[in-house]
Amino acid sequence: MSRPTERSLRELAERIGARVEGDGAVRVTDLHSLEAAGPEHIAPLLDRRFRARLQDCRAGALLLDEGLAKEISESDERPRLVADKARLAMVRLLETFHPTPRPAPGIHPTAVLGDGCEIDPAATVGPYVVVGEGSRLAAGVWLEAHSVVGRHCDLGEGCRLHPQAVLYDETVLEAGCEIHSGAVIGADGFGYATDGGTHHKVPQVGRVVLEAGVEVGANAAIDRATLGETRIGVGSKVDNLVQIGHNCQTGRACILSGQVGLAGSTTLGDGVVLAGQSGASGHIRLGDGVQVAAKSAVLNSIPDGQKVAGIPAVELSLWKRRVVLFGKLQKLVQRLRGVEDRLAAVEEAAPVKDEEGRD
Amino acid sequence: MSRPTERSLRELAERIGARVEGDGAVRVTDLHSLEAAGPEHIAPLLDRRFRARLQDCRAGALLLDEGLAKEISESDERPRLVADKARLAMVRLLETFHPTPRPAPGIHPTAVLGDGCEIDPAATVGPYVVVGEGSRLAAGVWLEAHSVVGRHCDLGEGCRLHPQAVLYDETVLEAGCEIHSGAVIGADGFGYATDGGTHHKVPQVGRVVLEAGVEVGANAAIDRATLGETRIGVGSKVDNLVQIGHNCQTGRACILSGQVGLAGSTTLGDGVVLAGQSGASGHIRLGDGVQVAAKSAVLNSIPDGQKVAGIPAVELSLWKRRVVLFGKLQKLVQRLRGVEDRLAAVEEAAPVKDEEGRD
Amino acid sequence: MSRPTERSLRELAERIGARVEGDGAVRVTDLHSLEAAGPEHIAPLLDRRFRARLQDCRAGALLLDEGLAKEISESDERPRLVADKARLAMVRLLETFHPTPRPAPGIHPTAVLGDGCEIDPAATVGPYVVVGEGSRLAAGVWLEAHSVVGRHCDLGEGCRLHPQAVLYDETVLEAGCEIHSGAVIGADGFGYATDGGTHHKVPQVGRVVLEAGVEVGANAAIDRATLGETRIGVGSKVDNLVQIGHNCQTGRACILSGQVGLAGSTTLGDGVVLAGQSGASGHIRLGDGVQVAAKSAVLNSIPDGQKVAGIPAVELSLWKRRVVLFGKLQKLVQRLRGVEDRLAAVEEAAPVKDEEGRD
Repeated sequence: MSRPTERSLRELAERIGARVEGDGAVRVTDLHSLEAAGPEHIAPLLDRRFRARLQDCRAGALLLDEGLAKEISESDERPRLVADKARLAMVRLLETFHPTPRPAPGIHPTAVLGDGCEIDPAATVGPYVVVGEGSRLAAGVWLEAHSVVGRHCDLGEGCRLHPQAVLYDETVLEAGCEIHSGAVIGADGFGYATDGGTHHKVPQVGRVVLEAGVEVGANAAIDRATLGETRIGVGSKVDNLVQIGHNCQTGRACILSGQVGLAGSTTLGDGVVLAGQSGASGHIRLGDGVQVAAKSAVLNSIPDGQKVAGIPAVELSLWKRRVVLFGKLQKLVQRLRGVEDRLAAVEEAAPVKDEEGRD
Repeated sequence: MSRPTERSLRELAERIGARVEGDGAVRVTDLHSLEAAGPEHIAPLLDRRFRARLQDCRAGALLLDEGLAKEISESDERPRLVADKARLAMVRLLETFHPTPRPAPGIHPTAVLGDGCEIDPAATVGPYVVVGEGSRLAAGVWLEAHSVVGRHCDLGEGCRLHPQAVLYDETVLEAGCEIHSGAVIGADGFGYATDGGTHHKVPQVGRVVLEAGVEVGANAAIDRATLGETRIGVGSKVDNLVQIGHNCQTGRACILSGQVGLAGSTTLGDGVVLAGQSGASGHIRLGDGVQVAAKSAVLNSIPDGQKVAGIPAVELSLWKRRVVLFGKLQKLVQRLRGVEDRLAAVEEAAPVKDEEGRD
Repeated sequence: MSRPTERSLRELAERIGARVEGDGAVRVTDLHSLEAAGPEHIAPLLDRRFRARLQDCRAGALLLDEGLAKEISESDERPRLVADKARLAMVRLLETFHPTPRPAPGIHPTAVLGDGCEIDPAATVGPYVVVGEGSRLAAGVWLEAHSVVGRHCDLGEGCRLHPQAVLYDETVLEAGCEIHSGAVIGADGFGYATDGGTHHKVPQVGRVVLEAGVEVGANAAIDRATLGETRIGVGSKVDNLVQIGHNCQTGRACILSGQVGLAGSTTLGDGVVLAGQSGASGHIRLGDGVQVAAKSAVLNSIPDGQKVAGIPAVELSLWKRRVVLFGKLQKLVQRLRGVEDRLAAVEEAAPVKDEEGRD
């Protein structure tokens, strides 16, 4: 799109805190994969398993960590950036080559703003954005086209709503949150008082708070609390199509992968990881560092640090053993049949007499 | 946000059909949880298991049912509202303290209305709403910002579309339906005629009917019928991210929890409950009152009243026994090995001769 | 809505490549199901199992294949269309009776177009559509109300975005793609470099390419690649609420049913079918023609043509056997107990001596 900027390895190394091996004057315009990179690109080798790809790789330079740099030092002569943490260095390189576009501050003439909104002059409000009364947008907030902010919301510095993200009334986003298109934050929790076969809606009068640096994927849904707060902890990342029920609470730096579901009032500690399509039932706690395997269903509280899998979820190594055993059921049945046959033969050869002496 | 209104317990009791124990002149401004309530609040105690929380509870008043009122009558001296159905009473209290905002009727100047729309003067059409030709909005309909109504739709009295809800052409919402943000009602069913490896789209020319009082959660999707109707029964509640395929039919007062999926032409009786992330395959019937456990997959029709669980789903108690047995597989294998060893010893001590008399 | 057009069976037969049995002058106005059709309708009988429904069917004409036509030739006297491929013929009939509305080309005055967009005069841009700078819309493109196209996107001939579909920057849609409401194409992949407990976002600088004729359901999400491309092959169909992670690649004519999830860098061959709520983990390949049963989790690569099921997924017939065995666990335990009892009796009758001669 725009003309690429060339940067020398030396300049890049300084910028991202890496060191150069080979010719630091070599210039590159972008980072590409080992397969796609050309002579004007740098390519990351982050995993030993992909070493063989170097052979056909046309990249002009490489990015790797100290260990891999040593390993390939004789077989590959390309200039390279060597970093302690190569994946983090890749992040910095990508940020350098692809800086997030920062739109000019200002309010698009088509935006509809409610009474009493406070919008920082350094915020950007895009076309057809609607902001409800009494909401506050801090500096650097970026509301893209068609995003909707309810009444009395509070968006901290640098928050970004992609097109058609929706915040219901009273939602709070601390600084640096990013909400992707179609995500809905603060819709009513799913709560009813059932009487005589009729479900009476429990008014959902709590709110949602996303702490600083939370990212929410496309078409995810985080419900407001019935009373009080649904709260997602600092730096947690929520993938596409995740469902978080009312009154859930997560610690910091949790990872909720695609299509994960948390029922109401689930509590996560810090650093909890839920893999894709897994779920947790309500009113339980997953302790700090708990890891849930894909497709699992956690029905009970899990202590800190445990890895779990299965439906219902059990300790991971136990689940693995059970899966192996499950695969051997057929053999188990055959062994049992063998035992029964042999036993019948034994019994026939030496009949067992019952207590009355009959056989 | 707005200044809270104080109400006496006596006034509240009358309003919600409860009775007062203690000083009916005590005034409260809101209902909060046992943990969060202050002296100016009333707090609900709906479950015996939470009795211990009363100790640190600062609420000025309590809400409970007759049984719990008796239980704590000596240990807790706070004035209280006592109701036959405390959870329903809580609903009424929340409705009292947090009435749903009713916007002024009228059509926002930015709304785009197709030819031949009939919009009741008592309906509210928000900013950037688009309504297709020939659609009808009854009194009290509230279309929030950016909601889109297709052509020839019919919305009954008091229906509410939250921001960015979408109705495709010909969708019918009976009175009192509420559709949350991002929900899509009436998109094409997933039907193809495959010929020579190519999938030819089957035109989806049916429609969706939501009967009175249906609530649909954020980012849920209910597909139109191929021919005829997809129909959700009176008072049924559909949670976030639920998928309902073409030509499904549900009875009244069904509950479809978060991320549930119904394949095409699934039929539910009245009062069916599907827990989170469960699913049902197409062309089957789940009878009245059927309950499906979280994460289960129902592959066959289920008779009235049955509770099921598992993949594929079986009767709940059977599934529970199997889960227990599954957990004992390791021991089972050990027992079998023990039997084999003992049998070998028996055989060695008293060799069994084969039919030719050899051992 | 509009007055229906009558067409004779003879005219229809010619149009769809079928032949008439009976009176070709009979006129019908629409196609309805066997249950709903009246004398002015034609009804399809596509499956032998539904033959009994003919008895009460009021349709004026039938559509069926050669085999079924022969079967009912004596029992049912209605005129009929007979086709080699009756389901495909039904598609053609529905297209005839319900042609997709083609809006007048033109750009709605409320549309917001970025600098340097190229919009073909034969494209239609609806109300409140936003198109970013440098994007290109070919002839016949139809952007419905509130759809959002990012910057530098490229939409081929005849692509249709339903209301509130979103394309992020640089997305490519080849000719004839259809994107339903709420679908989000090109949002950031879920990738982080975690360092010291903090998740640093990996900039997602790749893009999404949908090849010709891809259809994407409501509220589905297809993430852009970290580097390079996420690519959906020609004629593949993606149902509602499906999640496709960054860098996935599918072959042609794949079917991804409702709520399916593909983790990052999953590769599908041609004609792969994933049933509802199933998933595949990342960095694996599902070969040509692989079929995955509903609710399954594929954790390893699968060779061409295999059908799999289960969590983790195994070959389908194996999974079926295991499900049967699982259902017999209780009996297995009973048999084992029986063996243990009998063995104890044998041992008592003829004590086995250990090596030291003790019993």
